[in-house]
Amino acid sequence: MFSFTVHATQGPARAGTLHLPHGEVKTPAFMPVGTHGAVRGLHPDEVRRAGAEIILANTYHLHLRPGEEVVRALGGLHRFIGWSRPLLTDSGGFQVFSLEGLRKVEEEGVEFRSHIDGVRHYLTPESVMEIQWALGADVAMAFDHVVPGQAEHGAARDGMERTLRWLERCRRRHAELREAGGSDASNRQTLWPIIQGGTHPDLRRASAEGTLNLGPWTGIAIGGLSVGEEKPVMHRVLEDLFPVLPTDVPRYLMGVGFPDDLLEGIARGVDLFDCVAATRNGRHGSAWTSDGKLNLRAAAHRTSDEPLDPGCDCETCRQFSRAYLRHLFVAEEMLGLRLVSIHNIRFLIRLAEQARATLLEGRFDHWRAQWLKRYHKRGEP
Amino acid sequence: MFSFTVHATQGPARAGTLHLPHGEVKTPAFMPVGTHGAVRGLHPDEVRRAGAEIILANTYHLHLRPGEEVVRALGGLHRFIGWSRPLLTDSGGFQVFSLEGLRKVEEEGVEFRSHIDGVRHYLTPESVMEIQWALGADVAMAFDHVVPGQAEHGAARDGMERTLRWLERCRRRHAELREAGGSDASNRQTLWPIIQGGTHPDLRRASAEGTLNLGPWTGIAIGGLSVGEEKPVMHRVLEDLFPVLPTDVPRYLMGVGFPDDLLEGIARGVDLFDCVAATRNGRHGSAWTSDGKLNLRAAAHRTSDEPLDPGCDCETCRQFSRAYLRHLFVAEEMLGLRLVSIHNIRFLIRLAEQARATLLEGRFDHWRAQWLKRYHKRGEP
Repeated sequence: MFSFTVHATQGPARAGTLHLPHGEVKTPAFMPVGTHGAVRGLHPDEVRRAGAEIILANTYHLHLRPGEEVVRALGGLHRFIGWSRPLLTDSGGFQVFSLEGLRKVEEEGVEFRSHIDGVRHYLTPESVMEIQWALGADVAMAFDHVVPGQAEHGAARDGMERTLRWLERCRRRHAELREAGGSDASNRQTLWPIIQGGTHPDLRRASAEGTLNLGPWTGIAIGGLSVGEEKPVMHRVLEDLFPVLPTDVPRYLMGVGFPDDLLEGIARGVDLFDCVAATRNGRHGSAWTSDGKLNLRAAAHRTSDEPLDPGCDCETCRQFSRAYLRHLFVAEEMLGLRLVSIHNIRFLIRLAEQARATLLEGRFDHWRAQWLKRYHKRGEP
Repeated sequence: MFSFTVHATQGPARAGTLHLPHGEVKTPAFMPVGTHGAVRGLHPDEVRRAGAEIILANTYHLHLRPGEEVVRALGGLHRFIGWSRPLLTDSGGFQVFSLEGLRKVEEEGVEFRSHIDGVRHYLTPESVMEIQWALGADVAMAFDHVVPGQAEHGAARDGMERTLRWLERCRRRHAELREAGGSDASNRQTLWPIIQGGTHPDLRRASAEGTLNLGPWTGIAIGGLSVGEEKPVMHRVLEDLFPVLPTDVPRYLMGVGFPDDLLEGIARGVDLFDCVAATRNGRHGSAWTSDGKLNLRAAAHRTSDEPLDPGCDCETCRQFSRAYLRHLFVAEEMLGLRLVSIHNIRFLIRLAEQARATLLEGRFDHWRAQWLKRYHKRGEP
């Protein structure tokens, strides 16, 4: 359980398979985000048919509503939300640190006020482990101290060092929960650490070193990226970091990304991604295509009988014209955002599938260059 | 084509089959409403899987957006919206007459301002036929003058008489369109008249008589009910009216209804129903069950592992608990309204299926009495 096999590489890029209690995940892979235990607007069957082998749910949101005890009482998150494949829950670190002005960070943990009703809550590394254990995802994430993308060295170091101290506390509490859970509980959920350190190479390396010292781990995440820094900066961080990471565990780049981000990340050695952009863009009528981004509200699509992307195999592209999708957005009919979200999710999942296939065939670099050239050709409208 | 066969009766209630160009409709039947060419929030495949054999689309809304010429250019409404089974379009009469203060009725037609952008439009019986012909539904409805449920005799008579004069113009224009359409066009779409007359028995009978004089028709609708009058009044209108209608064409009670309305209507001889309540209630977290209406937001459902209705065979009840559905509504996650809308639509469709089955077995009256007793027992919370 929790094993990871690499089948092929091309430079730092890898094609692999991750084994989790609820099934296997072929990597590279994109994980759709189910904030409240549902990928925004989508039925779990649609997400499954879009090819998702793993989805992410937000601990922060599920802790506030409906609360992990409700989820536990209903048989755990898989059963509660109707998703039988692997699940990953984040730690809430990112959400809590986004609550600017509503939270107070201490060594013990973070006090914050709910964004919903202002009620005071307190999260510690230990309580975050308990919440995620109750939710019961295949993968739990450590509670981390996220700093903004432009954080200076001092602030980034503080966050990184606290993340390491909290990681030790997460590790200990998670081990206790596994032990207390009985004979098969240790195979139920694994814990992944999160490397922090902002955009500072020395801090990222220190974070990696400190994290590995607390290991071994079955997976390693990179947090605190795609939070305001320039893309070349993110790429440099990945390039600096991966040579010091073990090659036999999956690497998860949190909160990323867009289609081009996936290909740039895979080229640098990332195995797993998650991002809300697929569904957020879908809700605004913005669809990804092989030729760049497409704004469905544009009058140009008024009588277009074409699918969003003629090369796409998603359920939306197989069935509906741009004209109909545009009509749904103009008429503010909910079905529109749903159909475009399905397309965008399938678009990223298929992109990762194609990256995997070309890696297995040893032609990833060439394919990626061609793909990005076409994607960027028209630019974003 | 457009034939109707009655297989069994029990008093005025009938079980039949209606043959339309895009398939057959087993009656009694509930038609989900696809206002903008989509049953609010639902995928056409979901509507099909819920058992819908025919859906309704709104001429008024589709005329404004995207416009019938866009729909025609994209191959007609069936193809545009991805629905291959029978379709019925209403005439826009009900919508136009609901635009209180925004419309002016003349003998020639109705001038109105769009509820979206205030732009001036003019609909006549002839243009309404042309719009519906361009949309291409299996059944087009005549343009009628709807009066409020409490309209006095004078106003109700004026509306009823104008509806008859407009019916003659609709009939003529529809025949021209069919003839001009070529050899197979006459089998493409049929026109159904709408009986008006408010709550006044003499006017309803005069409307029926005048309508039949302009026939023959392949179906007859009853409009101007469920628009503010008391339910016993509606029942009395149906009881007065049906003895004078031919038995060999389907009877369509427009804009009705709720579960009990379906059973009361069927008992009085109605074959077809449509109503937005199923999806509107679904959007507000209100679900129909065999034990009456259920408000999903109620705290009682917080940890309930039960489906909405243990006796229901819909996709939602087969897969999700009340606790999860409640969570989705509390968290304002769109999936919730979709799942409850699926349930409510299936609930009405199945109710009509059950009515049909019991009619074929000669035990409809008994079943209906039992069903209504249980449904009303707890009352609406």
